[in-house]
This record gives sequence, structure tokens and C-alpha cells, in this order.
Amino acid sequence: MIDGQPIRVGVLGCGTVGSALVHLVNDDASRLFERTGRLVEVTKVGVRNLSATRAVDLDGSVLTRDTQAMVIDPEIDIIVETIGGIEPARSLILAALRAGKPVITANKELVANCGSELFAAAAESGVDIFFEAAVAGGIPIMRALRESLAGERITKVMGIVNGTTNFILTKMTEEGAAYSEVLAEAQRLGYAEADPTADVEGFDAGAKTAIIASVAFGLNVVAGDVYQEGISRITPNDIEAAARLNHVIKLLAIAELPVSDTRRDEVAVRVHPAMVPNTHPLASVRDAFNAVFVNGEAVDDLMLYGRGAGGYPTASAMLGDLLVAAANLARGTSAGPIRLSPATIRPIDMTTSAFYLSLDVADQPGVLAAVATVFGQHEVSIRSMEQHGQGNGARITFITHAALEADVQSTLRDLRKLDAVRAVGAVIRVIGE
Amino acid sequence: MIDGQPIRVGVLGCGTVGSALVHLVNDDASRLFERTGRLVEVTKVGVRNLSATRAVDLDGSVLTRDTQAMVIDPEIDIIVETIGGIEPARSLILAALRAGKPVITANKELVANCGSELFAAAAESGVDIFFEAAVAGGIPIMRALRESLAGERITKVMGIVNGTTNFILTKMTEEGAAYSEVLAEAQRLGYAEADPTADVEGFDAGAKTAIIASVAFGLNVVAGDVYQEGISRITPNDIEAAARLNHVIKLLAIAELPVSDTRRDEVAVRVHPAMVPNTHPLASVRDAFNAVFVNGEAVDDLMLYGRGAGGYPTASAMLGDLLVAAANLARGTSAGPIRLSPATIRPIDMTTSAFYLSLDVADQPGVLAAVATVFGQHEVSIRSMEQHGQGNGARITFITHAALEADVQSTLRDLRKLDAVRAVGAVIRVIGE
Repeated sequence: MIDGQPIRVGVLGCGTVGSALVHLVNDDASRLFERTGRLVEVTKVGVRNLSATRAVDLDGSVLTRDTQAMVIDPEIDIIVETIGGIEPARSLILAALRAGKPVITANKELVANCGSELFAAAAESGVDIFFEAAVAGGIPIMRALRESLAGERITKVMGIVNGTTNFILTKMTEEGAAYSEVLAEAQRLGYAEADPTADVEGFDAGAKTAIIASVAFGLNVVAGDVYQEGISRITPNDIEAAARLNHVIKLLAIAELPVSDTRRDEVAVRVHPAMVPNTHPLASVRDAFNAVFVNGEAVDDLMLYGRGAGGYPTASAMLGDLLVAAANLARGTSAGPIRLSPATIRPIDMTTSAFYLSLDVADQPGVLAAVATVFGQHEVSIRSMEQHGQGNGARITFITHAALEADVQSTLRDLRKLDAVRAVGAVIRVIGE
Repeated sequence: MIDGQPIRVGVLGCGTVGSALVHLVNDDASRLFERTGRLVEVTKVGVRNLSATRAVDLDGSVLTRDTQAMVIDPEIDIIVETIGGIEPARSLILAALRAGKPVITANKELVANCGSELFAAAAESGVDIFFEAAVAGGIPIMRALRESLAGERITKVMGIVNGTTNFILTKMTEEGAAYSEVLAEAQRLGYAEADPTADVEGFDAGAKTAIIASVAFGLNVVAGDVYQEGISRITPNDIEAAARLNHVIKLLAIAELPVSDTRRDEVAVRVHPAMVPNTHPLASVRDAFNAVFVNGEAVDDLMLYGRGAGGYPTASAMLGDLLVAAANLARGTSAGPIRLSPATIRPIDMTTSAFYLSLDVADQPGVLAAVATVFGQHEVSIRSMEQHGQGNGARITFITHAALEADVQSTLRDLRKLDAVRAVGAVIRVIGE
């Protein structure tokens, strides 16, 4: 890069996000210059197929299939990666970083699995690696965690970080529809993939949870560390039960320091559906929107809300990163390394949550006493109980106080052994009270 | 500053925010070092009274009354200002900036009135001036606007940026209480000052609106440019009317580019109560919480929510700023200047809003026709109308489509002249649909 010259950007991939970014940078260059004092231009776009139809007009000379040459090309100052997946993204990014080029990526899978490798390569070259767009799309949660909250003792981060599942749960809540119906609608609207597994079973949210935990706590957490339950078993009955209790069911991504005073290396990371009270700010996050709720000792509660996906919101986050990286590059500096210490992952059994439980019980005297005894034996304390119906169709629902997951699971095991308990119905964690 | 040595911080003022900041920095220095690689310590605290009781333990040698010497002391690297008000804060900050010291301030009044002077002084010395804590306390909206959204075409920012008035409106909404009752309660709880004017009449929110507009649009907007209406005339009737329409009344701070395509120098800035639909994310911001809602062309909707006041949330925002400034200083760089262009302020008469209006009308034939004719003459289009009661106690309420403020005001003037209109009751803007 020559001082005073435009900063030349190479973009890997030209799909929805890549083409939106090229459009934002190239069509608004003079305004960006006016606002930031910096000329930025996309000079190369690496693609697989030179003749594919694209959402953005590109001069043929800008396109290249030789991405390996592109990432080490001395005529390119910054690399933006929008191709996704582990390889070849990983090798290309590592090559770019080692060649001294800052990298902006939207690749959650890569950062969640290989973050520490990428961060180390960036630190070694003294260049920036930014990945705002990898978590919650256009929401500036990474910058908030890395900079605004750099000094904050964060104790817990909870997020709605998957738009597909939030869309499905919102429809189930507001229209009383069944999971499978709404999933089909989401697929028709393009909110869900033909194979929805990554979204509905919590894999996508799990990867984002790993990234959030890493940045919030400075600990090396990877996607495989995150406990996951998806939403595919949530029924209209569960949704109704939540509504009766003034709660709403959300798929939550949770990263917390369970014992923050003594061991700051131990972290609990999990994704599962949870009943959230209607008064909690996360409860009002509807449709495909995302939000991340942070609790810190000094800042108290903080929430960032916005579009978690989509070409332009994602490209907007990448553009913010790109302008900061360009400014740093022009000044010969960087945002500084991301330091990750080894993490101890607390097993899900050792986490605590309140639970909503429903039991179908037989019409026998002493049922409640028998059930309550089982709770007591496992030190699970009951906060409230309600009986619905009578006779052999009777159902008892419970909300427990916060209890150890292992204790709740053994309670359930023993409840299933009781003659009077015909079936254990819903078992849903209650979070945010 | 000597390389590798601690970064020495001078804090002006040691009230609620100053002492919280000193506590965060000094009592957590080793953890901050671990996270950021930087040692930061408060080495001087400038106060008026050396022997006052403080919320933080300070060695006597740290305290000084000579703040003028402190801000140019070569033994101090960064100045943090928590004293508030225009003078002496302005002179002290300018002296510090001219002496090459980065400045962190929480002073909304100063930044809203003298921002361009401070930014120019910082730019001339090539040092940082950060003021995250001046707007919405612990919410990282300034960093989001300055960095994450630096490339975004922001069209509108709407905020709940005054905790006192949001507390009062929340109580009025949830308990049906009258304004004066709730104000007295807020004063008892310490949420409102003995003289509540700055909060309830919108001055505090107005100053924050000016800062938001300046940073969001890169335009020089000062506190006096902001149109202000407070909440002191909001009645339980208004709150009830809003609730019937599934709305809630909030004091909104609004900064927008009314004609963003053609003139990016013209800005509309205003603070007034407004009916907000219950489904809007700002509607669920309760009690003393703040939130800032941003609309941009690429990022779409974004909202940041958190504690807008209080010693620790405010100090948390200042600590984030301080750590970034310290990192920049150690690298011999800065975040770069804030560039403000001259702004054209659009007068309130030329802004557009939908309106809720209520009219007490006489029991005469043709009342509605007469009223509707007046609306039509001023090109104010009616979206919905409802009549409550009959005979001489009848009231008609209207919601208009978005209309020019001047047209609505002339409509009201002419309505008051109608014999059949006994009184114009509530006139409340409807925002966020």
C-alpha cells in the first residue's frame, strides 16, 4: 500500500454477502472517502466460475479464479472472505495473514473451529482479523465485546443468534401453528434451508456461542465444546404452557462463567430452547431478528438487537470492519491481538437452570406426595405447581427453582419409575428471571 | 509515557462516576493487564475539596486541587473528565488535548455545545477524544456509530435516552398513576432531581440528540438546534388512549435525514413524547433503561439497550474508552478525527409525523363533516377515527397519516375555531409504524 493511495481490497466469494459488500464499497466510494478520509476500492474478486450471473456489475478484469495468488498479491492490501466453510477459506486466510494482509471474515464455522489458529497468525504478522459478521449479522456485538467491554467483568452472555429458529418459534407462538408446518413455510420463504439441520438442531447457534464465549471471556472455546439441543421437539402445547405462564419459548445461546469469582477459566456454553419471561428484553425479539444480551458487573444489563442475516446487514458489518482495518493499515497499526487462554468446559450436568416440567399422572391418592418426595430426594426445589384436569387425564406442571442439571435429570429418571406417573411430558429450562 | 510502563491516568472529579471509574481501574489492574496487555493506573484525581468523604479509598498523594496543572502534567498520559458542565471542564479538556493527552469524557452538556471545538483540538494534536458515556450511559452507541456503522448510510436514529422520564412514563403506564405522583416517587428514589426540569422538559435528551446526530451523520449539530417538548403535560388519559390503540407513550429523541437522497447536510432533530406501537422494540424498554434504535440502508434496523445512567454503568463505558485510548497511545496512534460538516437544521414545522388527536365536540348534526373538512383543507389525511360517548360529552379521536407538522398545526388552529369543537385535547405524535 502506498501512502495516500486507495486501499485495495480483494474479496473472496461473490454470493449474496460478497456482492452486497462489493456494491457498498464501490458504489459509495466518494461518500466513504468524505466520511472516513480514506479511499477504499475492491480491485479483485475471487470466484469459482468466471461467467456466473452475479448481483453486482463487475469489470471482467476484477474477477479471478486464482484465489491462492490473490491472497498473497502485493497489489492487494486487505482480504475479505465470504466463501464460508473450513477449507479452502482457512488456508486462504492464513496465507493472507502471513503475507501481512488484514482479513475480514463472515465465516462463523471457521472462526468457531479454528479461531485460535487465525488469531495467532494475525498476531504474528501484527495485522487485524475482524469477524463481526460471523455472529448475529449486522449487530456490532464483536466490537462491543472486544473494545467497549474490554475492561468489563462479563458474567453471562445470552443470545438469540439464529434467525431461522426465531422465525419458526415466533410463528408457532403468534399463530399457534405446529413446528413442521412453520418449517415448511420458512423453507418456502427462503428463511430455512432444504436441509434445516444446522439451524433447527442448534449447530449454527452453537458455533456462534463458541465465538461469543471466546471473545467475551478471552477463553479458547470451539464449536464442539457447546452443548446443543434444537427446537424440533417443541410442540404447540409447550408454547401454550409458556404463554399461560407469561413466558415465550426462544432458542437461547448461553455462555457464562459459572463461578466467576474463583475460576475465570471455567465456562459453560450451551444452546437449547428456554422459556423466557415476557418482561425480559429477549422475549420481544420477533421473527428473524437476532439479539445478544450481556450481563457485566459494572455495566449491568446490555442488549444489542438487529438483523442476524441477509446480504446487506451482513455486508454492513463487514464494511464497518473493513473501514477500521483500512484506517489501522494506513496508520501502520492494528487493533491488537485476541488473546485466548485455555478453557475448562463445564459439563451440561453441572450447569444450573430452573425447569418447567409436565407430568401425566394416574388418578391415585397420594400422587402429588410421591412426586414431591422424588423432587426432594434429589434436592430439586419446587417453585410452583399446578394441576390440570382430573382423573386419569390429569396433568401436573411444575416450575423448579434453579437446580443442577444432573439433579433434574435424576429426578426425571426416578419420576418415570413411579407407577402414578404415566409419562413425563415437556422438560423445558426457564431462563432470565 | 515510557514504552512498557503503566499508562498514567488523571481523573477530573471524584463523584459517583469518577469514584466508580477509579475503583474499576485500580482494583482490577492485574486482570485488565491480563486481558489487554496494558497496565493502566489512576495516578492523580483532581477534586475541589481534599478532605471530602469519597466512595473509593485514595492515597492522599493522588488527590490534587490544582486541576490546571494536572491536565498538562507530563507525568500523566490520559485525562478522564467526570466533573460535568461547560466550565471549567471545557478549558481543562482543551488544555489536555493541546498538551497531547487523549481525553475521555462523560460530559453530554459540553460535547453537545462545544463538540466541534473539542474534536478540532483533538485532531490538531492527533489524540483521541472519546465520550461514549455522554450518551446513554453504558450503551456502546458512540463506538457503534463511529466504527461499526462508519460506512453505513444511516437515515434515522431514535432513542429513549433519558432514564428519569422513561421511569416516570413506565410507572404511569403500568400503575395508571398521575405524572405529579410518579415524579414525586422518582424524586424520593433518587431517579429525579429536586428540580427535574432538565430531565422532564427534554433538555438532557436534547443534548444527547445533538451528539447522536453529529456522530451519526457527521454534521455539526448543537444542543440549541434540537426541538424539545417534555412529558410534564402527559396525562393518564393520554396513556390510556395509547394503550387502547396498542401503543405506549415514550419520550423519543429523534435525529433523521429527512431527504437523504439529495441533501445529506439537512437534519431534523427533536425530542418529544410519542405513541410507539407495542410491537416496536423501543416499546418494551421499561423503567430507567435506555435504548437507541438506528435505521440504516444496509444494516436495516439495529437497537442497543442498557443502563443509561448510574455510576458503574457510566464508568464501564469510560473504562472501555480508556482502554482503547491507552492502546492507541501505546502504539502512537489514535482513532482518527471526527469530521463535522455544517448542518442545515430542518425546522420542526417541516418535519412529518402521524398524529393522535382528541377533540371534545358538541352534540350537533354535521360535526364530523365539519371537522373532516378542516383536515382536508390542510391536506392532513385521516387514517382512523373513533367516537367515544354521545351528546355534549362526546369525544372524537383521530390518527392521521404522516403529515407535515405545519399542516397539522394549522388544522388544529382551524379546528379550534369551529363552534362544534369545544376543546382540542391530546395532540401526540405517533412514531415507529
